Amino acid sequence: MENDLILVEKKMHSHSSDYHTNLQQALDHLIASGGKRLRPVLALLVGKMLGAETERVITLAAAIELLHTATLVHDDLIDGSLLRRGIPTLNSEWSPAATVLAGDFIFARAAELAAETESIDVMKIFARTLSTIVTGEINQLFSRKRVANRQEYYKRINAKTASMFVLATKATALLSEANGEVIHNMEVYGYHVGMAFQIVDDILDFTGEQVTVGKPVASDLRQGIITLPAIYYNELHPDDENMQAVLDGNFYNDLLMTNLINSIRNSDVIEKSMNEARNFIEKGVDTISEFPFSAERDALIDFAEYVVDRDI
Amino acid sequence: MENDLILVEKKMHSHSSDYHTNLQQALDHLIASGGKRLRPVLALLVGKMLGAETERVITLAAAIELLHTATLVHDDLIDGSLLRRGIPTLNSEWSPAATVLAGDFIFARAAELAAETESIDVMKIFARTLSTIVTGEINQLFSRKRVANRQEYYKRINAKTASMFVLATKATALLSEANGEVIHNMEVYGYHVGMAFQIVDDILDFTGEQVTVGKPVASDLRQGIITLPAIYYNELHPDDENMQAVLDGNFYNDLLMTNLINSIRNSDVIEKSMNEARNFIEKGVDTISEFPFSAERDALIDFAEYVVDRDI
Repeated sequence: MENDLILVEKKMHSHSSDYHTNLQQALDHLIASGGKRLRPVLALLVGKMLGAETERVITLAAAIELLHTATLVHDDLIDGSLLRRGIPTLNSEWSPAATVLAGDFIFARAAELAAETESIDVMKIFARTLSTIVTGEINQLFSRKRVANRQEYYKRINAKTASMFVLATKATALLSEANGEVIHNMEVYGYHVGMAFQIVDDILDFTGEQVTVGKPVASDLRQGIITLPAIYYNELHPDDENMQAVLDGNFYNDLLMTNLINSIRNSDVIEKSMNEARNFIEKGVDTISEFPFSAERDALIDFAEYVVDRDI
Repeated sequence: MENDLILVEKKMHSHSSDYHTNLQQALDHLIASGGKRLRPVLALLVGKMLGAETERVITLAAAIELLHTATLVHDDLIDGSLLRRGIPTLNSEWSPAATVLAGDFIFARAAELAAETESIDVMKIFARTLSTIVTGEINQLFSRKRVANRQEYYKRINAKTASMFVLATKATALLSEANGEVIHNMEVYGYHVGMAFQIVDDILDFTGEQVTVGKPVASDLRQGIITLPAIYYNELHPDDENMQAVLDGNFYNDLLMTNLINSIRNSDVIEKSMNEARNFIEKGVDTISEFPFSAERDALIDFAEYVVDRDI
């Protein structure tokens, strides 16, 4: 597994010879600074469990992680984010023009690797996932941001996060000889683990410490993005004037914002949100538990449980 | 043919139901305002000549034209262009964030359609072409712009234009039962016609009238982008001070720029450049002429000749 992950990294770095040096350095930096590789880990575990050819799974895992990286490059540019995981973003150092093109280039590389799997079904879900992610972002951009609505929220985190987890689990299953039911179950597992992952991420945005998370506490709320803890808080405290001010978009008092964040942190909406994440995980674990025993199946159960137990 | 082109248009507009209205309107506007559809015409002719399944060729043609559209959306954003073909660009009306995402979305739609052709070989060349185009733009962005070098120029217009013509001819050939030699010949034809097309475009940038071309005369030179007529002019007049000033990047005098543009327009470098374009076309026509007679083969010969005869 460790070894396969190293091969995924290597595949992500692979390239033709005629890139501009600046681009190569930026890519190497972006890839090297990239998170926990959860999507490749998922793909590798599913691939091993279902007996898919390792080399193709490694290629797919690299393609998925590059797709993820490309969307982050454009996201950070759009949001004007200067740090990700505590490391300077590409747009903090490059011009907007170069950042747009670097993202496009990584999309292209991701598509090239996806095509290397030789599976047209993989290409279809790959393209569909990119479309889902981007549509979600466009909807968010054009919609009134400050909506405290659980259904909207679930739609948003599905597009933003769960769709890519589904890509990792389902597309990998498509590389195996698995039948339709198994493929469907891998989709169900990926969806629920992905949803839980994003909910926990949104909880950690409130409960984490700046130094651990690498960005200010409640950075979403500060930008007017309403995630599950804030939605629950708004449902339970419809009269909280600070919350209403955030939703109305006229909240610029730092002290009151800190008070509101503390109210949310110290209320039971954090636990309620965690329960919601646990519900998703439970469904994911139930689905995967039906598979015959294997070390990978158990690792996928552990993976799901890690998603709700982590503190970073 | 007319009818098939209408089906390509329809396919380009096709979509799932959950787009944001703004995005749909922008897409419809972008697609409706889109040029001469040369790439789809090429794909349809090659497809018919080689007996590829019409529906798949239509899907591929729509995918290629959307890929072309997506690259233009990001290009115009990067260049800050406000008009294309005399029509306001997306970035002239939308925020940079929305324009980046709209381009990404069109990439995704293009990839979805390409995958619908069910050909992994098509997907591979599709992804490769996007990579070539973007790499070319990045190289240009990071390199010193003002280079009067023919080899650099050919490399640049191959990445920018010929690669997409090759996509239209070669990927379509891949959808047919054609053998390797035929596929190679379609690549050769597409490459030479594409190179000629861009050279003629670059000539028209000098010789066309603003009202016809929809942008200022010699807009490339004004931006410090050195195309074939200027390269020839520089070779023939190494002592022209205005030209040297442009190459040195310190040329901000409008009157002198107009003089330089007029010198280039009225010199024989226009004819020299046209001859270069004709050389490319000749090779393209030679290649296609070896095919057995068919109405489509002759239309492809006409297409090549149109490329150098057009005045817009």
